[in-house]
Amino acid sequence: MLITEMHVTPIAISDPPLLNAAGLHAPYALRTIVELVSDDHIYGLGEMPGGTEMVSLLESIRDLVLGSDPFQLNALSLAITEHLAQSAQPDQTDVAREKRAARAFSAVEIACLDLMGKATGRPVVDLLGGRVRERVPFSAYLFYKHPGAGGALGFGSDRHAQGWAAARQAAALDPDGLVAQAQAMCAAFGFQSIKLKGGVFEPAVEVETIHALRRAFGPEMPLRIDPNAVWRLDTAIRWGKELEGVLEYYEDPVRGQEDMAALRAAVSIPLATNMCTTSFAELPGSLRLGSEDIILSDHHMWGGLRASVELGRICRTFGRGLSMHSNSHLGISLAAMTHLAAAVPNLTYAVDTHYPWQSEEVLVGGRLRIEDGSLPVPTGPGLGIELDRAALAALHANYLACGLTKRDDEVEMQKVEPGWKFQPTRW
Amino acid sequence: MLITEMHVTPIAISDPPLLNAAGLHAPYALRTIVELVSDDHIYGLGEMPGGTEMVSLLESIRDLVLGSDPFQLNALSLAITEHLAQSAQPDQTDVAREKRAARAFSAVEIACLDLMGKATGRPVVDLLGGRVRERVPFSAYLFYKHPGAGGALGFGSDRHAQGWAAARQAAALDPDGLVAQAQAMCAAFGFQSIKLKGGVFEPAVEVETIHALRRAFGPEMPLRIDPNAVWRLDTAIRWGKELEGVLEYYEDPVRGQEDMAALRAAVSIPLATNMCTTSFAELPGSLRLGSEDIILSDHHMWGGLRASVELGRICRTFGRGLSMHSNSHLGISLAAMTHLAAAVPNLTYAVDTHYPWQSEEVLVGGRLRIEDGSLPVPTGPGLGIELDRAALAALHANYLACGLTKRDDEVEMQKVEPGWKFQPTRW
Repeated sequence: MLITEMHVTPIAISDPPLLNAAGLHAPYALRTIVELVSDDHIYGLGEMPGGTEMVSLLESIRDLVLGSDPFQLNALSLAITEHLAQSAQPDQTDVAREKRAARAFSAVEIACLDLMGKATGRPVVDLLGGRVRERVPFSAYLFYKHPGAGGALGFGSDRHAQGWAAARQAAALDPDGLVAQAQAMCAAFGFQSIKLKGGVFEPAVEVETIHALRRAFGPEMPLRIDPNAVWRLDTAIRWGKELEGVLEYYEDPVRGQEDMAALRAAVSIPLATNMCTTSFAELPGSLRLGSEDIILSDHHMWGGLRASVELGRICRTFGRGLSMHSNSHLGISLAAMTHLAAAVPNLTYAVDTHYPWQSEEVLVGGRLRIEDGSLPVPTGPGLGIELDRAALAALHANYLACGLTKRDDEVEMQKVEPGWKFQPTRW
Repeated sequence: MLITEMHVTPIAISDPPLLNAAGLHAPYALRTIVELVSDDHIYGLGEMPGGTEMVSLLESIRDLVLGSDPFQLNALSLAITEHLAQSAQPDQTDVAREKRAARAFSAVEIACLDLMGKATGRPVVDLLGGRVRERVPFSAYLFYKHPGAGGALGFGSDRHAQGWAAARQAAALDPDGLVAQAQAMCAAFGFQSIKLKGGVFEPAVEVETIHALRRAFGPEMPLRIDPNAVWRLDTAIRWGKELEGVLEYYEDPVRGQEDMAALRAAVSIPLATNMCTTSFAELPGSLRLGSEDIILSDHHMWGGLRASVELGRICRTFGRGLSMHSNSHLGISLAAMTHLAAAVPNLTYAVDTHYPWQSEEVLVGGRLRIEDGSLPVPTGPGLGIELDRAALAALHANYLACGLTKRDDEVEMQKVEPGWKFQPTRW
């Protein structure tokens, strides 16, 4: 079984004006769809972050992928790593080099696993050791946001779906707005954990939002806040002490392993990260410093599904919990996340997903349905999904038309707040 | 695909009177052959250490294995771990508990991977991410030994095979004897690395053996010595300093992570272990103390082939090299070791094997042929081997007839040296 075709298709999907520490989401989020076709006419799918840089990265490894056997993942990973090392900028750090190679390989690995699953008649989860759970729980992902949301909703016509359609359109710029957003989102999808994207307003406002969510949902609903590392250490300690006993975990309030470790020593809340420890190369520092309790894995960043399973073993071995990070994404990523999360015994936290914020899909049958806050683990061969080529073509046309080439939340924010600047440490 | 039959067959294989720190090998080494049969009439093979305790351990998990889908390895591992935890002695440590569960699961996992490979038409290595090398190099494994060796040799009739047959029979009780053994073994199998099992004679004799091997084979031949932790720290430092620049690695000269770490700080030779760090539970201590440079993995002990791949990632991440440990074994273990070693990029050392010391086999086609010191990675489905049921029956009859129920090298040594006692620290 050899790979004979590799199709890299950049797409743009409608995205609401969500606020975060880096600024504002553009009207379109960029993704990249990877399709590998084998000599026996099977196709495998992958989805990655988007933009021209990702497309260039994948084009740069095309010659290594074509002609490969999708089962030979180890060899392909080594070849990609070596090839990218040769073409790396001389000043690129080892960590940056690992991350670039991991990202390039991730895109291909997912599609290869889909091919392998289809070739063997097995769901991808079975190529990762099999499922340890039948459904994968996801977390509600709340955002402060400006009014409006592009895209046609595909969530159905029932009362809760309509409620979510309205909430997705609505502004949410204060605690009450976030509670309303959470209620609509949880009603529509049944989420049983809530994450608030912070780093947008004064910490007092965001902490008050957490308190408001707790009042609205009660103490049994796990709550998380993610200020994306724009809080100072003293700020994070101060508000962390107030949130002890309230948060399930405290995600990246401060920047870097050193400050995370100092914060961790000062407050009694589990610290989670998808910023200070995001590669295998950063794990020795994480252990040396004790920078977090929970790693938010991301198969797009860590080198694919098998590498993420290996990360799971590392977390189990060295006393780290495991959760999962998300970016704006469609169903190929969601399916891959679901297979992965089903295979990792110690992935015991509900997984982040932006999926409710998206409205489009590239899958036959349309959007995957999150119910009771979770997705069933697909049982069909491979990822268990099929590509809707008309939808893909439309979203690729969106990409060409929208003019965006990379995510830049700062520029987008400047369109509504002229002169706004991203500040790595803000409060 | 469900497992409908589980056959656990203890066997006894001829073993020469090899000396080691624990005493003397008995005339028979005990192994356990595991066969799982699926409802579509495929069988999968595993081979484990032997004796009544292993048989009991495997019988205790039989009900969990029967009816399982061999692809659901994660679930089976969890079920076995939980089951054994419930039946554990109250004073069993967490490390001991993990090791027991890992050992029980290993036996089943290998056979499941063989089933999975046969069911999908893929070699086991492809279920581990595929091969990164076409052949797996093994190391010559030298022993001080008494004269004699049971079993009929199956190595062929050429000059080198005859030479090895004679050397395998001969006594080897001094440096010259070991050089002759090494020459015969390397001529017959083409090994390009040499390991000396030490801990038998005064360190001066064993170090002189290393020097004699170096004189005989030249400085390009990698040499290792393994005193099985019976040297004191000061002894190991003294002789380690003399062996700097001579040894490829220095395996377990002292006992425990603390002493290994102290030795590592004192001598400039890579330290290897299959004694002080032999489970995931012991890795945090290994990193905290810095107890070794190289871990000798063993899929029979670490929880199977997939766990060993994960150990490989841990070694890559935290700066440990990776080699592989062996016990007296037959071709099922050898095939599994070969698939595993082929899939782990950083397994860059020649793998230990006792295989040349064995003379029997349970495989159709007889013994696997190590040539140029290496084995080709099997390309057939599963492990790529078939069970010779007549040979299995004969070796099971051996087991019943020989009366051995566990390995006890001390008792065996006392038969030739009355009153001999194992000393955990001897020199």
